[in-house]
Amino acid sequence: MPRFFVAASNLFGGVAYISGRDAEHIKVLRIRHGELFTVCDGKGTDYVCRLKSADAKGAEAEILETSPSRGEPSVFCTVFSAFSKGEKAESIIQKAVELGASRFVFFPSERCVSRPDEASAAKKCVRWQKISEEAAKQSGRGIIPDVMVVMSFEKAIQEAAKADMPLFFYEADTEYTIKQALLSRSEYSTVSIVTGPEGGFEPDEVLSAKSKGMLITSMGSRILRCETAPLCALSAVMYHTDNL
Amino acid sequence: MPRFFVAASNLFGGVAYISGRDAEHIKVLRIRHGELFTVCDGKGTDYVCRLKSADAKGAEAEILETSPSRGEPSVFCTVFSAFSKGEKAESIIQKAVELGASRFVFFPSERCVSRPDEASAAKKCVRWQKISEEAAKQSGRGIIPDVMVVMSFEKAIQEAAKADMPLFFYEADTEYTIKQALLSRSEYSTVSIVTGPEGGFEPDEVLSAKSKGMLITSMGSRILRCETAPLCALSAVMYHTDNL
Repeated sequence: MPRFFVAASNLFGGVAYISGRDAEHIKVLRIRHGELFTVCDGKGTDYVCRLKSADAKGAEAEILETSPSRGEPSVFCTVFSAFSKGEKAESIIQKAVELGASRFVFFPSERCVSRPDEASAAKKCVRWQKISEEAAKQSGRGIIPDVMVVMSFEKAIQEAAKADMPLFFYEADTEYTIKQALLSRSEYSTVSIVTGPEGGFEPDEVLSAKSKGMLITSMGSRILRCETAPLCALSAVMYHTDNL
Repeated sequence: MPRFFVAASNLFGGVAYISGRDAEHIKVLRIRHGELFTVCDGKGTDYVCRLKSADAKGAEAEILETSPSRGEPSVFCTVFSAFSKGEKAESIIQKAVELGASRFVFFPSERCVSRPDEASAAKKCVRWQKISEEAAKQSGRGIIPDVMVVMSFEKAIQEAAKADMPLFFYEADTEYTIKQALLSRSEYSTVSIVTGPEGGFEPDEVLSAKSKGMLITSMGSRILRCETAPLCALSAVMYHTDNL
């Protein structure tokens, strides 16, 4: 069933009011009077709707049924990813939204080849947010994960360390596995997954992350690309927490 | 350390003989007399080597140390993937080799939009095999996973069903989770991961797979793209079997 995100303020009195790009999309998809589609408030609730009317200004639909969005995992995972070259960030966002990530934070680190300035990072962020929205629609999510950029490694780690399960992946440390980390605490509702750029993290960054309370964790004995690592970690977290 | 694959027949008398593309690569990487690199026999054994000589014909290196390749997982996973559009197969191979897949089988299924004929599939297969080799080098694997193409769904399933843990992913069946499947048998050394094309499998294909002994398994309540699904399943298998 087609799926749209609508601000909660556009859902009232048993009617969903759809405007802008989504109203255009209803036309493009040729959804007709009486046909069903899903509207999501972006806060984890789905509304099955029947189209009542659609014109140039927008569309109105009757709300038939309300239910929690099935696509939302029970843990809130933030993917913290160092700036990478080319379109790797796009690929990480698209696939990690499908896999259940709830937020993205991009940040610079010492070995980053790509170092956007604040203006260009802000511009990228707008595009990345759109990719998150498209992936959320396509994969049936109940929220549109936020995409943010912070301009220092320290700020990223400060935020990452707040999670109940703060994972920092470092390829040179193979002693502490992701399974040991995930088993080390019994209950957690927030998870941070921090992964490095193409060249990995510098040892002093690892020490700094450790001192802030991050769990320095291995992802096994194979070397993962910077765009593969967050997807692998996220799949493992979702598997472990029964969200797969 | 740079890494090369060499036929086992080129490793004897404590010397590794390197020729062809890899010998050129040694030049490109400017590896000098006395410097170290790793040679792998493609059968799971690594050889730490010191360069003795290199010329237009090839290179010779002294074998200093022999050890099992650290990058090999304890389970042999085959990724069975329906033909997909564009360069999705390339992306699946590259990332799944990093994640520990040991073999790839591509096959047609009813809803495939891309349906290469036998000649064009064979041509693709040659390119895909090179991508597997590059990914194996880069990620530190001990083998180069084989890439194959079969020209019918039935043949693919017949092969997939031979595994100790034969997983067939179907998005419409959300009752049997991948965790239930992985816990349903106590020991397995071979795993099949079968995933569909962009439009998913037809119900009659699912019935046919089930009748051949495949475990029809869900990958959770989010809809995954055809290039994301095998990576998610593979990460979960590697996590479950302590290979992460």
